[in-house]
Amino acid sequence: MSFNTFGHLFRVTTFGESHGPAIGCVVDGCPPRIPLTEADIQPYLDRRRPGQSRYTTQRQEPDAVRILSGVFVDEVTGQQVTTGTPIALVIDNVDQRSRDYSDIKDKYRPGHADYTYDVKYGLRDYRGGGRQSARETAMRVAAGAIARKILPDFNVRGALVQMGPHRVDRARWDWAEVGRNPFFCPDAKLAAVLGDYLDGLRKRGSSIGAVIEVVAEGVPPGLGAPVYGKLDADLAGALMSINAVKGAEAGAEMRMGNDGKPLFLSNNAGGILGGISTGQPVVARFAVKPTSSILIPRRTVDRFGHETEISTTGRHDPCVGIRAVPIGEAMVACVIADHYLRQRGQVGETPAWPLTQSAR
Amino acid sequence: MSFNTFGHLFRVTTFGESHGPAIGCVVDGCPPRIPLTEADIQPYLDRRRPGQSRYTTQRQEPDAVRILSGVFVDEVTGQQVTTGTPIALVIDNVDQRSRDYSDIKDKYRPGHADYTYDVKYGLRDYRGGGRQSARETAMRVAAGAIARKILPDFNVRGALVQMGPHRVDRARWDWAEVGRNPFFCPDAKLAAVLGDYLDGLRKRGSSIGAVIEVVAEGVPPGLGAPVYGKLDADLAGALMSINAVKGAEAGAEMRMGNDGKPLFLSNNAGGILGGISTGQPVVARFAVKPTSSILIPRRTVDRFGHETEISTTGRHDPCVGIRAVPIGEAMVACVIADHYLRQRGQVGETPAWPLTQSAR
Amino acid sequence: MSFNTFGHLFRVTTFGESHGPAIGCVVDGCPPRIPLTEADIQPYLDRRRPGQSRYTTQRQEPDAVRILSGVFVDEVTGQQVTTGTPIALVIDNVDQRSRDYSDIKDKYRPGHADYTYDVKYGLRDYRGGGRQSARETAMRVAAGAIARKILPDFNVRGALVQMGPHRVDRARWDWAEVGRNPFFCPDAKLAAVLGDYLDGLRKRGSSIGAVIEVVAEGVPPGLGAPVYGKLDADLAGALMSINAVKGAEAGAEMRMGNDGKPLFLSNNAGGILGGISTGQPVVARFAVKPTSSILIPRRTVDRFGHETEISTTGRHDPCVGIRAVPIGEAMVACVIADHYLRQRGQVGETPAWPLTQSAR
Amino acid sequence: MSFNTFGHLFRVTTFGESHGPAIGCVVDGCPPRIPLTEADIQPYLDRRRPGQSRYTTQRQEPDAVRILSGVFVDEVTGQQVTTGTPIALVIDNVDQRSRDYSDIKDKYRPGHADYTYDVKYGLRDYRGGGRQSARETAMRVAAGAIARKILPDFNVRGALVQMGPHRVDRARWDWAEVGRNPFFCPDAKLAAVLGDYLDGLRKRGSSIGAVIEVVAEGVPPGLGAPVYGKLDADLAGALMSINAVKGAEAGAEMRMGNDGKPLFLSNNAGGILGGISTGQPVVARFAVKPTSSILIPRRTVDRFGHETEISTTGRHDPCVGIRAVPIGEAMVACVIADHYLRQRGQVGETPAWPLTQSAR
Repeated sequence: MSFNTFGHLFRVTTFGESHGPAIGCVVDGCPPRIPLTEADIQPYLDRRRPGQSRYTTQRQEPDAVRILSGVFVDEVTGQQVTTGTPIALVIDNVDQRSRDYSDIKDKYRPGHADYTYDVKYGLRDYRGGGRQSARETAMRVAAGAIARKILPDFNVRGALVQMGPHRVDRARWDWAEVGRNPFFCPDAKLAAVLGDYLDGLRKRGSSIGAVIEVVAEGVPPGLGAPVYGKLDADLAGALMSINAVKGAEAGAEMRMGNDGKPLFLSNNAGGILGGISTGQPVVARFAVKPTSSILIPRRTVDRFGHETEISTTGRHDPCVGIRAVPIGEAMVACVIADHYLRQRGQVGETPAWPLTQSAR
Repeated sequence: MSFNTFGHLFRVTTFGESHGPAIGCVVDGCPPRIPLTEADIQPYLDRRRPGQSRYTTQRQEPDAVRILSGVFVDEVTGQQVTTGTPIALVIDNVDQRSRDYSDIKDKYRPGHADYTYDVKYGLRDYRGGGRQSARETAMRVAAGAIARKILPDFNVRGALVQMGPHRVDRARWDWAEVGRNPFFCPDAKLAAVLGDYLDGLRKRGSSIGAVIEVVAEGVPPGLGAPVYGKLDADLAGALMSINAVKGAEAGAEMRMGNDGKPLFLSNNAGGILGGISTGQPVVARFAVKPTSSILIPRRTVDRFGHETEISTTGRHDPCVGIRAVPIGEAMVACVIADHYLRQRGQVGETPAWPLTQSAR
Repeated sequence: MSFNTFGHLFRVTTFGESHGPAIGCVVDGCPPRIPLTEADIQPYLDRRRPGQSRYTTQRQEPDAVRILSGVFVDEVTGQQVTTGTPIALVIDNVDQRSRDYSDIKDKYRPGHADYTYDVKYGLRDYRGGGRQSARETAMRVAAGAIARKILPDFNVRGALVQMGPHRVDRARWDWAEVGRNPFFCPDAKLAAVLGDYLDGLRKRGSSIGAVIEVVAEGVPPGLGAPVYGKLDADLAGALMSINAVKGAEAGAEMRMGNDGKPLFLSNNAGGILGGISTGQPVVARFAVKPTSSILIPRRTVDRFGHETEISTTGRHDPCVGIRAVPIGEAMVACVIADHYLRQRGQVGETPAWPLTQSAR
Repeated sequence: MSFNTFGHLFRVTTFGESHGPAIGCVVDGCPPRIPLTEADIQPYLDRRRPGQSRYTTQRQEPDAVRILSGVFVDEVTGQQVTTGTPIALVIDNVDQRSRDYSDIKDKYRPGHADYTYDVKYGLRDYRGGGRQSARETAMRVAAGAIARKILPDFNVRGALVQMGPHRVDRARWDWAEVGRNPFFCPDAKLAAVLGDYLDGLRKRGSSIGAVIEVVAEGVPPGLGAPVYGKLDADLAGALMSINAVKGAEAGAEMRMGNDGKPLFLSNNAGGILGGISTGQPVVARFAVKPTSSILIPRRTVDRFGHETEISTTGRHDPCVGIRAVPIGEAMVACVIADHYLRQRGQVGETPAWPLTQSAR
């Protein structure tokens, strides 16, 4: 029911704005006795953190996560484990530069949610995007780090497969490459040209969209449901909740894109059939639109209804899709962990299928 | 939490298989005092019903809906209105032809959910698709007919905008055309060629995908939420829960498709900004994949793990996307009605925006 | 979120008024492969059905339940089993005597919800109690019959332990007696006097409250949760949702009542400690207030705000608590089944406790 | 679905243990533009805080609440108001005395949840009650302070009406007295004797139960629902989720207790009829059992299954019911605020009832 929670048995509630004291989340429903410390979460946050290369926004936040609850040191093993109670995570906001918001506090930036916030709530926190700040996604990544530990042999990896007109050549796909370039690109040859491409965009004050692909291995068969809890629909919905994502799909064929066939008209399974996982790797894909911040002055209105002009300055990210890779991984991990617990609740741990034959 | 419910304040729970006694739904949370009889619902069901043209499956079901609860005749006006309590709707299944399922009851049809059902539940109702039967969508259409009555001046219309390689020319768009051809096509010239195109597909035992567009007018500004209740993400998720839908988007620019630009990389609003409605018409679009039933024998396995061959016979629909138009309309209507009630709950009826100025 | 659903993983949504075509419910989340036919449900409905003795209301309804969905005949065993999809149940309303409602349709009966319905919804279905009709509880009983089948070795039994000033003597408690008298009374000696007691009340047009006790055996340890999902609080909440129930408790000591000690100040466990089941039988108790229908004319107002007088006639039940016994059993069964699935989802099937020692 | 959330539109998720770094909560769904600072919350926390008199536990925690998100300073008024996004509150745990838990870490204290935690989760945080620590209730009080601001003219007040055998005389009820004695007792004469009574109990290492009454004024008519969302059942369920509460009721007659009539068999309204508020003050009542900590050595088992002895030492509260008064107020405020938003969502702001007449 909440506008700030996702998941059902593995539930994540996030809170916080970029200019308040902190952002955070509560992960509820995590099974007990799972080893968990900050060190399990921090590396994923570090991958998402801006300012790591000149291709992403230069905001500098250490993004150091703290676990406030839900863990306990097992006295025998000495290991810190989950207790089954809510795990609260917080990250303090430390980079709250005093900035002049006098231009945007009254004016509506085209393509931003300034107007819709005002019309919905009667006010808006104009500092750094308010609730819709990209910082919120840090908590998804943190929750995803916990979700990754729930299924045995669970491995969730993402990669950038397209940036503007540039697509990976799947014949050159190498997961090891993803960590070697600042674009999360699995195709070394493509990665070599993306830097120059982005530099050109930035010089023009322009920006570009991207397509991200996430592959989850170790997903048991039977997750999802026939009608409203389809695994592919839930994955797509979770991915579309990420800022700037305008389309998503899951369960489609794995190899496509270079052959010119339309994205949605294919027919292969990709780990999901009829909304239910097959036991094969689950593949999800989503498209991130270009940022709407551009430097050119544009006509707009202010909140008093007067016509005016606005030009956006400040931090500028020519391809926000790059940083969406760890976020997409996290959302896929959370959705699958949730479905895993739901399936275990309704049907139990005993696999249904091998029993069918002997039972009959 | 349920796998068979959608919505939060306007909640729809569907039930039923195509070969049980009936299908139905419970609509909970509908405001009271809304005029409602079967005659408000039946026309939408009639539009969805198969067997109305030679281009859709020939299954013959009257699909006559009955209201079991939640309405009452106002003694003064003599009008039947909602009471605010759950509205249960049922449609009896009357076309239960005795059919021979001996071939498919043990064999897994490629591209179907046969295997995943067995592996999830340990059994499957192989008759007519079981729970995943297209008949389930009739209840979405019925619920949508109620949702349409919740907002004042609410108008939700859909159209087929692409079938295989054939796209509508938006310069020829005429809503009145949609009701004049069996394809829900707003472009009369395109509609004129689709019949022959489909006949050709059927002769070859082939099938084709389609893209549907739904436009909702009368949507007040302020619906949706910044993070997990984004109106566009919720619309896309609802559309992706429809059988055979493999991709969906909402809130993107209205005119596209003929210009060759990629679907997801556009930047216009289409009625939604930052996940929140702007007050302009809301546009949603979804793609329906071709049916997986084909007549050519294919290799598969049976539920005992033995390799075998299968060829699907029976009713065949060369483009299931056609019938998805009224279903898509219904899902859009339900999602927006739900967000309307949620916004009214949290923020109240008084528009937030015009107050801002005077309040300050 | 719904006002007409209870449970989380084992979810029951009820619908219907006593004077519409039918009442019904949808049970969602039931595990698959559980044998289920109407014959598993009907006996519980028959126990609840009014008109079975002269001590309960004489409304005559066969209350024949039909399963509309969610079951399938296993082809090998020939047994009808659940499929894991929603189970819809309906009971047609057949005893819709044409009755004159002219007196009560405008007047507010004291102690009834007539006024609050009007003030909430702007109208009310005055026929037979509308949504709040006792008939709604038939669907709880039906859902409870399914819940009983979810846990192995699950046995849920209820008994009337107090009627007005008359309390059972626990030394004479005999479960076999419960089925032998029309009061569900486990104390044969007490049962022998209750008939005369009720006859006296009825002659005076009076009515009396009762206390019901439900004992659930076969409840595994570990169900419930520390804070908001306490098993005792959930049981009490479920019991208090029954019409005319004004107080409930669970997990308190089993033997009390005859010793004069206050109900709530005791300290024994009764199967629940800290909100979590211990593995011992779970005991719940609830009090049903006297019916508010009395024959003496009383002052009231009508819906136009005019003062007037009203006297209630018609069917009269001197102790509605009697018929609450099977309803209380059903609610206890549903709550425990739901917690069983939730615990299995979060923690899994392997018992946590015997592992603790070896794991360390 | 969560075990750590309550409410639907006004949703409160709490987290934290007494011996972790902090406790906290997230309040989601709060309407925007409500003035809110820490100063609105802190006074309620101060009333609940232990160690304020010699009659409650001596644990010393400043319980200083911090708002981490969901507020914004309105630039025109200069006032800090809610934004409609999640409000996160935290209280650091500062009184984490290093204590020796060697005795209780392996032994199960009779009457405590030690065993049930181990059997549920496979481990337990034995420090200070873990998740079930009374500290968790501080966050309920904090959330309640926000809930109090949602309805206009909303006033929620509680009082201790019974301690062991001592009951208030309602003829002497004076709300002003509640703040003048350390027992929240509205009867000055009774308050004068409770101190000595508690001193006697403490000397004997004994403890006693209490009954608390909460009265909510300014509750509009129409809140609640006929079947599963009954306002009285929801209030009772919320109150029963408080630690050590073993029974609760709402909506019963206001004056009782001194007349010897059984609690549950009364028939008056107390602000709720048929589960729906009447517009009159809503009255709820709950009973808190004596603490189970006693100093006398008792037989028990340890987690390895060996028989042993245990005697509880440390902080001892002879009547935990005293501190339950502000907690009960908070739960009542939260439940009513939630129902207020839900009613506004389904039915709208326009009162339904005065319209009935003119509409007809």
